[in-house]
Amino acid sequence: MEELKQRILRDGRALNSEVLLVDSFLNHQVDPRLMQKIGMEFARRFREAGVTKIATIEASGIAPATMTALEMGVSMVILKKSVSSILSEGILQTEVFSFTKNKAYQLTLKSQFISPEDRVLLIDDFLANGEAAFGAIRLIERAGARIAGVGAVIAKAFQPGLEKLRKAGYAVEALAPVREMREGRILFADD
Amino acid sequence: MEELKQRILRDGRALNSEVLLVDSFLNHQVDPRLMQKIGMEFARRFREAGVTKIATIEASGIAPATMTALEMGVSMVILKKSVSSILSEGILQTEVFSFTKNKAYQLTLKSQFISPEDRVLLIDDFLANGEAAFGAIRLIERAGARIAGVGAVIAKAFQPGLEKLRKAGYAVEALAPVREMREGRILFADD
Repeated sequence: MEELKQRILRDGRALNSEVLLVDSFLNHQVDPRLMQKIGMEFARRFREAGVTKIATIEASGIAPATMTALEMGVSMVILKKSVSSILSEGILQTEVFSFTKNKAYQLTLKSQFISPEDRVLLIDDFLANGEAAFGAIRLIERAGARIAGVGAVIAKAFQPGLEKLRKAGYAVEALAPVREMREGRILFADD
Repeated sequence: MEELKQRILRDGRALNSEVLLVDSFLNHQVDPRLMQKIGMEFARRFREAGVTKIATIEASGIAPATMTALEMGVSMVILKKSVSSILSEGILQTEVFSFTKNKAYQLTLKSQFISPEDRVLLIDDFLANGEAAFGAIRLIERAGARIAGVGAVIAKAFQPGLEKLRKAGYAVEALAPVREMREGRILFADD
């Protein structure tokens, strides 16, 4: 997605060869017009996938996932990283290790919100090692539903998640696949 | 906001006199079309407030805040409850006590995203004791900006937050102010 890649080149910062900072428009400050265009682009790419529901992982995926759900005319489910005291009945959980925070958390879904008839499109801001994505997929499949696809706003193609998801047979779309970051330069995989 | 109140009556559940469960359309499963209408309603109510930026508290406020920001044509800032390892420079923090989770957390803002020229509209899903709202206001004012107003999707008017904010001089709009919950019935304050 050209506009997104230009925005990353203009406002993103490669802190080192692994860490891409995009907190001025994607995950701390959020540009809602860009989120809308991201939602339109995911809707276009997954139009034929029979999507009945969007899922995302709290919290940075919520803005692009909401816009994708609006555009596709389906509802959205936020997979939670912490369990509220009032979220108690019929929950599914799986452990996910976060490399960014260097700790594990329990990804949580109230099973009533995903049914065996659903074809779920998973949307997240980043795809890197794939730990969060595979955790989300485990929960969704345990609820009996099928994965319609995985959409990442940004994928670090030099980390294993993208390839592992594709090898496992999932349809993955990355709007900005980053091939490499070197000396502050950001290079995209599809240029 | 009549459509929201009808949705709460239809799909919400008063678990007891204090806890209102709305996780089927607001904070676990999310209805994006309702979020869009909520964004339009906040934009209408704060049209004359000179809003230059939306702020919200992760995570359940993000969907309605994104829609409000889109509708008002301004950017949005997510105040974080946990600090990423890559969010390190120029941060402001304040401690907030969560009654829902019965523990304190550090609400965090990278100061570069709110400037002294900003007039900030704070949007959140719930207003109850006001702890989170006052924490967000402390951060925003510490960044030198002014509060244009506070918008809550649902306010528990029987808890002190709404009144405390108004007494402190802030313009508060609650789209669904709940007056009382009794024997499973939900009564609104403005009916």
